[in-house]
Amino acid sequence: MCVSTSDKERVIKNISIVLVSPQVPENIGLCARVLKNTSFFNLLLVNPNLNGKSFEVSKRARDILEKAKICKSLKEAVRDSHFVFGTTRRKREYASVYNFGGILPMLAASARKKKISIVFGREDFGLSKEEMEYCDSAFYIPADQKFASYNLAFSVGIVCYKIFEYLENISSISSLSLAKNKDIEALYINIENVLKKLKFKSNITSGSLSTIRRIFKRTHLTRNEMKLLKSIFLAAGKKA
Amino acid sequence: MCVSTSDKERVIKNISIVLVSPQVPENIGLCARVLKNTSFFNLLLVNPNLNGKSFEVSKRARDILEKAKICKSLKEAVRDSHFVFGTTRRKREYASVYNFGGILPMLAASARKKKISIVFGREDFGLSKEEMEYCDSAFYIPADQKFASYNLAFSVGIVCYKIFEYLENISSISSLSLAKNKDIEALYINIENVLKKLKFKSNITSGSLSTIRRIFKRTHLTRNEMKLLKSIFLAAGKKA
Repeated sequence: MCVSTSDKERVIKNISIVLVSPQVPENIGLCARVLKNTSFFNLLLVNPNLNGKSFEVSKRARDILEKAKICKSLKEAVRDSHFVFGTTRRKREYASVYNFGGILPMLAASARKKKISIVFGREDFGLSKEEMEYCDSAFYIPADQKFASYNLAFSVGIVCYKIFEYLENISSISSLSLAKNKDIEALYINIENVLKKLKFKSNITSGSLSTIRRIFKRTHLTRNEMKLLKSIFLAAGKKA
Repeated sequence: MCVSTSDKERVIKNISIVLVSPQVPENIGLCARVLKNTSFFNLLLVNPNLNGKSFEVSKRARDILEKAKICKSLKEAVRDSHFVFGTTRRKREYASVYNFGGILPMLAASARKKKISIVFGREDFGLSKEEMEYCDSAFYIPADQKFASYNLAFSVGIVCYKIFEYLENISSISSLSLAKNKDIEALYINIENVLKKLKFKSNITSGSLSTIRRIFKRTHLTRNEMKLLKSIFLAAGKKA
């Protein structure tokens, strides 16, 4: 498997960043700039307070602003998307709210095949209840509990940067097909069995198994990687 | 091993963010705000263009700005630091320049024990050659090659956010003692030997070993985690 630039490009191309009623003109310019820093280019603005200051602040990302699609409603902005992610600071009853770090691999995997939108609300009160109903799911960006409110442009910046970085680090987007949780759980059972057969039992504490879980949890195993590990531990189990 | 809040707090407390001659007042306020979003509080400003707009933009992070130490030179700002990291867009001859993602675990591990500074240069041309000489090492933030220049506040924001997130994800900062590269390389050799003994050879291609490398590369193994994996594969090798 080797790096596929066209796969990365497809993911980026399939993601639209939607700003709902951004009120501070400079924020819109800063968003355009950080989109361009991180290779994104699809910007949709719903009733924006866009003016000369936005263009001034955008610097060399002026083209992103010039090509931005201006919409009258969120409904219109997400019309062509197969999946819509809302962003929120609050947990709400009517939508699942995920930690952004946890949902990132799934988000990137979705964008490999389908058009998706990531929607950011207005500076002062985010997305309305009605607007959240256009979102299939929602996520929050982890922050200090005492001051969790990021500036709008930072929220956009963190999201775009993390996706950009994720795509840079994944060697092959083709393997972005992530392992299912149940298969990973089965892998842990394989590993545990091998350890027991290896008479590793005396040294292996529940802490050791937690450590193994933690290593693999951090790494977001793809389906192919998981298969390889599984076959190794199955072979080891037979020999032991 | 369990999460130690005091360890996290110590890392954050030991990190100072230094802005050298920031020219745009709003940028200074945005930096203060994102520091507070991500639990940071040590801000040092070298000859800043600080005014009312900075305080206005900082919102509820006004206290960070009020407590910020104003210095006349970078030398004065980094006086108490054991280790100084500079940020740059350019690779330079007179300092090692790392990818921020790669240097992050080492940076966090340093800050567990000693005071460190992370230095950001002015908006238009970064840090001067003379200022870079006060930095022990330097890093860049990955970006689109065609437009790699982040707004100053974004650079600060990405760095603070990534450290914050890293500390949230590491279960125990006490285990932040990272495995050495040579030990990780020895681990790969162990794994390869086990695979050969398991007669896994026919299935195991150089691609499979690359996959294993990639999994562990992504996960930033700590010394303890590496030891556990090593002992498992050594036991498997003896049995196979």
